[in-house]
Amino acid sequence: MGIRVAVAGASGYAGGELVRLIAGHPELDLVAVTAHSQAGAPLAAVHPQLAGLDLTLTTTDPAVLADADLVFLALPHGESAAVAAQLPESVRIVDLGADFRLTDPAAWASYYGGPHAGTWTYGLPELPGQRAAIAAAGRVANTGCYAATITLALAPLIAAGAVEADDVVVVAASGTSGAGRAAKPHLLATEVMGDLSTYKTGTHQHVPEIKQASGARSLSFTPLLAPMPRGILATVTARPTGAADAAEVLAAAYAGEPFVKVLPAGVFPRTAATLGSNACHLQATVDRDSGRVIVVSALDNLGKGAAGQAVQCANLMLGLPETTGLSAFGVMP
Amino acid sequence: MGIRVAVAGASGYAGGELVRLIAGHPELDLVAVTAHSQAGAPLAAVHPQLAGLDLTLTTTDPAVLADADLVFLALPHGESAAVAAQLPESVRIVDLGADFRLTDPAAWASYYGGPHAGTWTYGLPELPGQRAAIAAAGRVANTGCYAATITLALAPLIAAGAVEADDVVVVAASGTSGAGRAAKPHLLATEVMGDLSTYKTGTHQHVPEIKQASGARSLSFTPLLAPMPRGILATVTARPTGAADAAEVLAAAYAGEPFVKVLPAGVFPRTAATLGSNACHLQATVDRDSGRVIVVSALDNLGKGAAGQAVQCANLMLGLPETTGLSAFGVMP
Amino acid sequence: MGIRVAVAGASGYAGGELVRLIAGHPELDLVAVTAHSQAGAPLAAVHPQLAGLDLTLTTTDPAVLADADLVFLALPHGESAAVAAQLPESVRIVDLGADFRLTDPAAWASYYGGPHAGTWTYGLPELPGQRAAIAAAGRVANTGCYAATITLALAPLIAAGAVEADDVVVVAASGTSGAGRAAKPHLLATEVMGDLSTYKTGTHQHVPEIKQASGARSLSFTPLLAPMPRGILATVTARPTGAADAAEVLAAAYAGEPFVKVLPAGVFPRTAATLGSNACHLQATVDRDSGRVIVVSALDNLGKGAAGQAVQCANLMLGLPETTGLSAFGVMP
Amino acid sequence: MGIRVAVAGASGYAGGELVRLIAGHPELDLVAVTAHSQAGAPLAAVHPQLAGLDLTLTTTDPAVLADADLVFLALPHGESAAVAAQLPESVRIVDLGADFRLTDPAAWASYYGGPHAGTWTYGLPELPGQRAAIAAAGRVANTGCYAATITLALAPLIAAGAVEADDVVVVAASGTSGAGRAAKPHLLATEVMGDLSTYKTGTHQHVPEIKQASGARSLSFTPLLAPMPRGILATVTARPTGAADAAEVLAAAYAGEPFVKVLPAGVFPRTAATLGSNACHLQATVDRDSGRVIVVSALDNLGKGAAGQAVQCANLMLGLPETTGLSAFGVMP
Repeated sequence: MGIRVAVAGASGYAGGELVRLIAGHPELDLVAVTAHSQAGAPLAAVHPQLAGLDLTLTTTDPAVLADADLVFLALPHGESAAVAAQLPESVRIVDLGADFRLTDPAAWASYYGGPHAGTWTYGLPELPGQRAAIAAAGRVANTGCYAATITLALAPLIAAGAVEADDVVVVAASGTSGAGRAAKPHLLATEVMGDLSTYKTGTHQHVPEIKQASGARSLSFTPLLAPMPRGILATVTARPTGAADAAEVLAAAYAGEPFVKVLPAGVFPRTAATLGSNACHLQATVDRDSGRVIVVSALDNLGKGAAGQAVQCANLMLGLPETTGLSAFGVMP
Repeated sequence: MGIRVAVAGASGYAGGELVRLIAGHPELDLVAVTAHSQAGAPLAAVHPQLAGLDLTLTTTDPAVLADADLVFLALPHGESAAVAAQLPESVRIVDLGADFRLTDPAAWASYYGGPHAGTWTYGLPELPGQRAAIAAAGRVANTGCYAATITLALAPLIAAGAVEADDVVVVAASGTSGAGRAAKPHLLATEVMGDLSTYKTGTHQHVPEIKQASGARSLSFTPLLAPMPRGILATVTARPTGAADAAEVLAAAYAGEPFVKVLPAGVFPRTAATLGSNACHLQATVDRDSGRVIVVSALDNLGKGAAGQAVQCANLMLGLPETTGLSAFGVMP
Repeated sequence: MGIRVAVAGASGYAGGELVRLIAGHPELDLVAVTAHSQAGAPLAAVHPQLAGLDLTLTTTDPAVLADADLVFLALPHGESAAVAAQLPESVRIVDLGADFRLTDPAAWASYYGGPHAGTWTYGLPELPGQRAAIAAAGRVANTGCYAATITLALAPLIAAGAVEADDVVVVAASGTSGAGRAAKPHLLATEVMGDLSTYKTGTHQHVPEIKQASGARSLSFTPLLAPMPRGILATVTARPTGAADAAEVLAAAYAGEPFVKVLPAGVFPRTAATLGSNACHLQATVDRDSGRVIVVSALDNLGKGAAGQAVQCANLMLGLPETTGLSAFGVMP
Repeated sequence: MGIRVAVAGASGYAGGELVRLIAGHPELDLVAVTAHSQAGAPLAAVHPQLAGLDLTLTTTDPAVLADADLVFLALPHGESAAVAAQLPESVRIVDLGADFRLTDPAAWASYYGGPHAGTWTYGLPELPGQRAAIAAAGRVANTGCYAATITLALAPLIAAGAVEADDVVVVAASGTSGAGRAAKPHLLATEVMGDLSTYKTGTHQHVPEIKQASGARSLSFTPLLAPMPRGILATVTARPTGAADAAEVLAAAYAGEPFVKVLPAGVFPRTAATLGSNACHLQATVDRDSGRVIVVSALDNLGKGAAGQAVQCANLMLGLPETTGLSAFGVMP
């Protein structure tokens, strides 16, 4: 008999991916899947890819969730705190929302508004010291998808003093699943296919999380909506200090990591190579004209950027091998 | 220590998917990956999704393959016979090519030309009696991707006498990976994205296999190239006999099957729901105007249509649980 | 000073394409663009491709429309009759909706429900006699997009007795703009990209129109939703009578037509080749196994399938050269 | 009888788009279309969108080209000089290649290698003084697609002193047609759909042209390959000087321009809105965290980025109204 887990918010894209991963996880038993407006529906009616999985969505009832050993919260931003408050200490929680990521209440107030829910252990195991912290935590705030992509590229360089923490410029493109499942006109297939655009240009609510996690002091972050369902590709540029070679710093930082791969020299990341996996691919180079360091980072926003990362954290929290039930290899082509 | 397997033709798309599945298979050890022009290259240089898997492609040398317990042949059509002839009886083989699928040498000569290599056990476990035959076989000819999609939809209906075997009309659309990895101008992204077209219109070499496996006596089969990397959606129409309800026949035929799912009434298959999985989704209805039975069938051409199916057959041949290392749940969205 | 035209329902996709075509039409002056919920918005806020066109959407007021020489109605199905009833006889109308297409009230009642609005001249100039009828008409019912695609492929064959009118089987795939602009979850980019599915399987409301216009007596029509914004590809199969060669019949039927092109032998239509144009591309062959005639037909559902066709009809009604302001050449790649 | 024009290199994507535009241009007669390996083929066999246009590709013979009033060269980079040298002064030339764009032979040698062909009038009419220069020129070097996208966004800001010319950071994504029509494995649909990647990361041969045309002194330029056939979206960031408001500078620079549109405040460019047109859409904002100016620029790489731009230049050179035969409105959705 396995460890009992529940997914709150199982009707969304991250929730569906969590269920898929849990269904293939040898140690986890999925005991509850909850939703809001979709409660009562068979899970496979909401997630056609789960046809054959005989589960029904129930309402997000803390009493039901409390019966699990670990709960994944895949709720809309701002809704995790109320649910978490009703779960006993003994139930471990991984929150995929933004509510508990920030350490600075002022940053929360400025970008999200409303009261700050608090700060949980930040769920990015590859950051120095974070693996042990997650393993010891009862409450973990999973990284955001952009923050994971950019932080894995940038944090070691800033920590090593290889690049300046000021005037970091990032352009990152995301597949549409990052925008969620609500039916909005600008997310229609007819609008998106064959199209590229920026959004939240000049002010994106993930900036404080990216700065906090990566160590950047000044950040220009422009997100793009790309005509593909999944994947994030970030182009991270920063001015080198001359203190260390960026590619070498990254290689050293991630040597032995099961999911973060610095590609061979001359090979650059592609989002497709990470589809459906928990992998993040990285490569660094120096721009010929400007001398800026360019780090390209790719991952699956629902994988290492959300559900995969959450399962990786859960494995650590539950004392399981960190890679259980996860793949480093993408579904490609 | 696991069962030793090798993949010949590992540089192609089906070969890459085989390696991905084997890498996640708890009982199989991948001891050789071979290729032709790419021999010598690191596997991950050819398949970026396998970054971190430390294997090198070697030439397709029967002596190397003979060292495995089971060999997957993912070679271009027409090349399997020569390799198979050099492998001892004791080495099990699953051939993903067309060479050994047909029972009728005349059909081979007519559609493929050249000498007929022979006939192996047909690798579609869900056909009556075939599961046991595969388990007992040392040589298995994996189904073609179109044949799997259409046969799973049609064979039970013809076998049950629910539809006429004459004048079956099928239109099936495939993602581009079905066309292989050779760089042909009409397969360029620029040409395919935003485009739909038919190909091999009116004469496709898979017609004899589809007829043989499904029992159709007369078949109009039109394939379409769809702007997506993976997936086949087949629309199979046949005239009903009145002897049985098509949906009920399918439900009975696949009750208990782990990978073939007849969807709930009113729900129709989508290719995306099968991506990266070994699932085939089916639904039947009756056309209001013509009275024809319409069966819609969807699968991943590289999954249940190729590599997944091959692993399923291998599991049977090796005495492993049939579902080992395979998922019935697609990577969606 | 040009001919004054208005577009009612200018906020939808067909409406936007109409405005684009009218903006490039040397004889038409666009005097009003109307909408429902978007009334009051700058046109370019609703249609970004029209940036620089200084027009504002107004409410669909018959008094405003009556000031035009010709009105295009691009309204939701069922809304044309009420507007048309308030326009004087002297104002010519092209209705892009389905309301006035059917001659059989029973067919309307059966597939659409509600009262039958009536029957207008059918707006497919390439049908025998129809060009003159349109030129003489004050009210024209533009063809539906599927009906245009399929009728152009099939009508000459049935009329010539080259194929049987019974047991016609059609599978046609449409880009997503055919589903309109309403934000529905299943039309999200995340759901559609990388996916193929059927819809309204076995019962589609365009069947009566297709039968009426093409002469088919029994029709199995299965529509597919394809991951592309525009384009329809229809595969039309019918049993040959032996009375005439299908390709020759089509070539004769469309000789000299400016927009309907029977491709050279061996060349099959592609939707991309018709993008943004008023072209329809056709090719016929005979299926090797079944002997069925297969006609492949491609057009742009918003071009020859809607707005382009409407402008072609309007040109005829206004006594202008039929091709004015229209292109036979698609935007490709 | 119109002005006689020829297209050398008509078999490529830019060549095909040139022919499409010329076919719809009221003043130009297309008298020759030439190619290399495709010579002898009907034009529509190479460009399916031109079905019905009865032209045959001939070899690129200067004697044939010399018979035209104006020749468009859409040849591979490095091949224009040899052809141009054989054409008389009286034949006007617009070269879509890079050969004659650069003023600095050292920059050519460094990024392209080989001898520098020379410098022609730069074909970007919206630059100050350039419209008159083009009108007076017999030889014009059309802008590159990236250079057009970025220069239109950046040049007015640097010229006005609104931003620093140092440390400009640009990330620009292009549809695949920008990579040309040669069948390369990494450009296969199977590889590109659902994928985003960078290419020529850190060293792209268009950097010198962009710097020369825009006035940037230091430029980090990272190009992305996007899963769509056409379109470029550039995100251009630079540090503000405080001397002027970027949005106001752009609005003033392009007031009255027929093809370059600064969008209303808060509206950001989308590539789809420019498809098939000669439009470039722009918007500027200031990044909240870093204070950098961000300009987003979108155009069709085959339109304003190649063939449309070339026709615009040709119109100027021939004394025609600049907008003849061109549209500012994209084909969208």
